[in-house]
Amino acid sequence: MLRPLPDALTDTLTVDYRVVPPAGVPVEAFADALLLEQTIETPRSVAARYPFVEAHLGGAVEAIALAGDGAYRVRLRLPTYTAASDPAQLLNVVFGNASLHAGVTLVGVDVPASVLVAGDYGPAHGADGLRRLCGAPARPLVASALKPAGLTAHELADVAYRLALGGCDVLKDDHYLASQPTAPLADRVVAVAGALDAAAQQTGRRTVYAPNVSGTPDVVLSNAEQAVALGADALLVAPMLVGLPTLHALRRFGVPILAHPAFAGASRVAPDVMIGQLFRLFGADAVIFAGHGGRFSVSLDEVRAIADAATRPMGPLRAALPTPAGGMTRERAAELVGVYGTDAMLLVGGSLLDAPDLTAAARDLVAAAEAATAALRP
Amino acid sequence: MLRPLPDALTDTLTVDYRVVPPAGVPVEAFADALLLEQTIETPRSVAARYPFVEAHLGGAVEAIALAGDGAYRVRLRLPTYTAASDPAQLLNVVFGNASLHAGVTLVGVDVPASVLVAGDYGPAHGADGLRRLCGAPARPLVASALKPAGLTAHELADVAYRLALGGCDVLKDDHYLASQPTAPLADRVVAVAGALDAAAQQTGRRTVYAPNVSGTPDVVLSNAEQAVALGADALLVAPMLVGLPTLHALRRFGVPILAHPAFAGASRVAPDVMIGQLFRLFGADAVIFAGHGGRFSVSLDEVRAIADAATRPMGPLRAALPTPAGGMTRERAAELVGVYGTDAMLLVGGSLLDAPDLTAAARDLVAAAEAATAALRP
Repeated sequence: MLRPLPDALTDTLTVDYRVVPPAGVPVEAFADALLLEQTIETPRSVAARYPFVEAHLGGAVEAIALAGDGAYRVRLRLPTYTAASDPAQLLNVVFGNASLHAGVTLVGVDVPASVLVAGDYGPAHGADGLRRLCGAPARPLVASALKPAGLTAHELADVAYRLALGGCDVLKDDHYLASQPTAPLADRVVAVAGALDAAAQQTGRRTVYAPNVSGTPDVVLSNAEQAVALGADALLVAPMLVGLPTLHALRRFGVPILAHPAFAGASRVAPDVMIGQLFRLFGADAVIFAGHGGRFSVSLDEVRAIADAATRPMGPLRAALPTPAGGMTRERAAELVGVYGTDAMLLVGGSLLDAPDLTAAARDLVAAAEAATAALRP
Repeated sequence: MLRPLPDALTDTLTVDYRVVPPAGVPVEAFADALLLEQTIETPRSVAARYPFVEAHLGGAVEAIALAGDGAYRVRLRLPTYTAASDPAQLLNVVFGNASLHAGVTLVGVDVPASVLVAGDYGPAHGADGLRRLCGAPARPLVASALKPAGLTAHELADVAYRLALGGCDVLKDDHYLASQPTAPLADRVVAVAGALDAAAQQTGRRTVYAPNVSGTPDVVLSNAEQAVALGADALLVAPMLVGLPTLHALRRFGVPILAHPAFAGASRVAPDVMIGQLFRLFGADAVIFAGHGGRFSVSLDEVRAIADAATRPMGPLRAALPTPAGGMTRERAAELVGVYGTDAMLLVGGSLLDAPDLTAAARDLVAAAEAATAALRP
């Protein structure tokens, strides 16, 4: 629970918007309107009646720069007083009403360390914690998905067993797996965790399991508690489906969190900000995103920006593990290691699941990741 | 809590996407890829191994039509089996991974009554319930906002008192009001509810108060419980800040819910679908949106589409009350009644708060709404 900050009145956060002003509106006037929207949201004459508001809560337009194609980059400096009260308010101050302007895209956010610390933001385990949990191999982590939804708990456990024998570090539920009667959460966790234990007796290494938690917030939280009690090593959640503050709340269960991007693309937030920064800020230890060259039309520049945002210094926050997905294949392991280095997780679903022998396919993927890692060394 | 549906395997939901396929990809192939994405999300060869999945969970591309400007309208028919498991999964099936395709916009959704009933979707009170709570005047409801954040509970109560004396039906918190030390939720509710009781002794009518609930889900839920216990008549929540499933969970507190659009504009979902349909579906009794001719660049067609989506027949669901906001003024009351009729709520913030005499200004607004209503009669 966040307590009022002593420095909430002097610290500021900055947001950067890419702005195309409405026709006929000068950018200076539009930037000022955005500032008003993200602060007092009343005429200045109303705020002027209240000395505390007038003195502390006005914020400022810090910079306006040309950004090409008739667009501008507008930087606002905003007081942290409102933002610091809870995680939903942080999001509100960053891009609440401003999001209602069609010409405005959130392209950057900088939250001061005072808010990050007081609000207990960021990954609780981080990339390093997740790697340690997997025995910290000197290569990218290798992950796959248990799917499709509609399989029974037993069928999912069978897939998990075969992929674990092949050496997968992490197995995550399909994001469609929730409480369907074919594989209710408790049955699924017990069956999969048991299968992973059995595989570990043969391989000597325990694969990490991240079941999906979904639903209304109380269901998400009780499912998470139950899953961890029954043997889940990590959790998968889609923050934009359940709400970013629910991601923040899941940190309490003591296991790493993988964040899935479902519904997150439907957004006028730059992907590196949404997935790299905001998912990390709200507590994701690994951030899953659509990789280049797969099913989704994304560029190498975009995925590099996401990986950079997930890992670059951000006050006291741990790095989150970049996890490209969505049509990654075994054959591309070397290329992916070339792009992301070894501090990443290669999430390969269909290409493994479609193989005649899942174990052999998983083994190939792990070997390819190892070979690509060895090739990186001077 | 949603239970498995007996008809989850035979009922279907439909989604409509506006689609611009990636360069060189035929629309038929892209539509099929979207279908895969929103159903089994594995190669079909994988699904074919599992008879249950193969038989029930594949869905279908129902229609592809030209939509102008190189775009198509693609209608998918999707099984409800996955969607019916919880509210987050409904959203996931409607627009989860499909949202990650830049060329895809959600423009329509049709959820079968079986899911609506089993999942307990929709407004618990609806437009009618909210109007009854306000004494059901024969004109649009008149609402205003308590703001800006930074005011003390006493200052907010003073604003509330003056607006209530003027006859406002509903007063909502500013969406930035959370747990800031200037006006913690409990202090605020007690002070404002007390002020509204005092005003009611003079006017004979009690103004409805909707405090804002914000934060991580457990905080939102405990704040809602506390607020209602202390005298809140309704609740305000921003579903896209806290997550749509959290809106669904708030229905349990037995009071009408006003949904605020913060962060909802940052979205590749048509506004009438997001605010009119999805907010209503997840339980909003009144849906607040940026009105035309105010601070936001929205057209008359857009606001009419939102109002229509909030109120038109949707299986067993109650109507939600259309609530235009964001720069509405007293002077525009007649025009707004002309657009929305009387089954609406006119949310006028700054234009009332900026007046020298809040009570007189509120009284003017109520009188203007009444006059416009009288003018509608034949």
